[in-house]
Amino acid sequence: MKSIQSLVIIGSGNVATHLALAFKEAGINIYGVYSKTFEHAKNLAKKLDTIAYLTIDDIPTNADAYLLAVSDSALLDILKQLPPVDSLLMHTSGTVGLDVFPNKFKKTAVFYPLQTFTKEKKVDFSTVPILIESKDEEVLKLLQILGNKISKEVKHANSEQRKQLHLAAVFACNFTNYLFQISYDLLDKNGLDFALLKPLIKETIEKLDFLSPAEAQTGPTIRRDFETLNEHLEILKDYPDYHYIYHIISDQILKLNSK
Amino acid sequence: MKSIQSLVIIGSGNVATHLALAFKEAGINIYGVYSKTFEHAKNLAKKLDTIAYLTIDDIPTNADAYLLAVSDSALLDILKQLPPVDSLLMHTSGTVGLDVFPNKFKKTAVFYPLQTFTKEKKVDFSTVPILIESKDEEVLKLLQILGNKISKEVKHANSEQRKQLHLAAVFACNFTNYLFQISYDLLDKNGLDFALLKPLIKETIEKLDFLSPAEAQTGPTIRRDFETLNEHLEILKDYPDYHYIYHIISDQILKLNSK
Repeated sequence: MKSIQSLVIIGSGNVATHLALAFKEAGINIYGVYSKTFEHAKNLAKKLDTIAYLTIDDIPTNADAYLLAVSDSALLDILKQLPPVDSLLMHTSGTVGLDVFPNKFKKTAVFYPLQTFTKEKKVDFSTVPILIESKDEEVLKLLQILGNKISKEVKHANSEQRKQLHLAAVFACNFTNYLFQISYDLLDKNGLDFALLKPLIKETIEKLDFLSPAEAQTGPTIRRDFETLNEHLEILKDYPDYHYIYHIISDQILKLNSK
Repeated sequence: MKSIQSLVIIGSGNVATHLALAFKEAGINIYGVYSKTFEHAKNLAKKLDTIAYLTIDDIPTNADAYLLAVSDSALLDILKQLPPVDSLLMHTSGTVGLDVFPNKFKKTAVFYPLQTFTKEKKVDFSTVPILIESKDEEVLKLLQILGNKISKEVKHANSEQRKQLHLAAVFACNFTNYLFQISYDLLDKNGLDFALLKPLIKETIEKLDFLSPAEAQTGPTIRRDFETLNEHLEILKDYPDYHYIYHIISDQILKLNSK
């Protein structure tokens, strides 16, 4: 089996955009882009200096591989419509298993970049873990080579492990960002700039390079400084939702760290 | 009033250690260290190449300033025992007001570094916000000069603002770190390395340099991907505490972002 030299991109969201740009930069030939919304496909195609397909039937069947970077809910629908191709089909979802591919496709895989993507911000893929999965050993080798064109961190992970990683990422990133929302809002309401907290946030993350999160835990809760806890809950009286979150997370920290 | 050239350090924990080392490096003369536990005072004094005081009565009264970097609960006790001095007294607490100082002290202030300190890890103070407070304009000027010896970010903040910042920091750092604990534990139980999430965590933070946390929110909850939410809750069945936290934070994200 020859290495993957050409790709069709299906999808036009953040994952599709960032991966396609990284692949193009790595010298992969991007045949074209398909998206349910033709306008979106055209926009991404323009960035990639390639063409956009108006309908699924316009997608050529001779690309080396097809990258499906669409929402989990759209994936099954698109797979139903796609004609059977001999080439490799890859989806990029953290939560969807390899079993999503209908039998009409012979070479299937998952190519999951464990990263959060924002439209406006370029991602340095070189350290982004790419988690690959396929039942076909040959395909795994091709994925390894393809992944290494954009990242040093290409690893095998089965569907179960990918799900666990995705779940852990929700806690470590999405939920963390929600706590930043609370923090931002509390400061904003008091005329204070969230930027003041950034060195503290950066240090909180950097600590994890040599301590486990349990070892790195600081603050009034872990110190069992109940005077400060009560004062915080008093300040939060005016913000019932934040009061509730403060109360519950404090309780959990006390519980988790007194086992 | 002459600028602060000499300091006595009271306390020997992380804040005392990191601040004292930074002041020493900035050319401040560290007279000596007092701590309730003499052994701790000796250890810190050794690092600072200075002396340790066995009792409070041994502390000289002619230093330019006294830095009280002790726990909130120990602060009042030490202030009671300290002889009245004409020099400046500063505490380093985020939560304690300026009113903690008994009337016997004439020049009082707060010198609060908004950072998290770990014994093993050197802190780059240059970008750490130092929040200063005093009722005395002259003292504020001295604090500004002293603060600028170690940081570019010296700002005035009254006790109320400092409390708000401390509370916001608990959400953004201590509670965030608790979510990392959950994440670490879930991966660990499945033989996966938390380090895989670090690029994702770093990117989550870097986004905040140009997006507000509300704008930066991603993940299944904000996408209203209830299929993934339910699947995550299903995986978490075996971890009732994590299931609970997932449920509550998801609900809050939905609520906060649909207003």
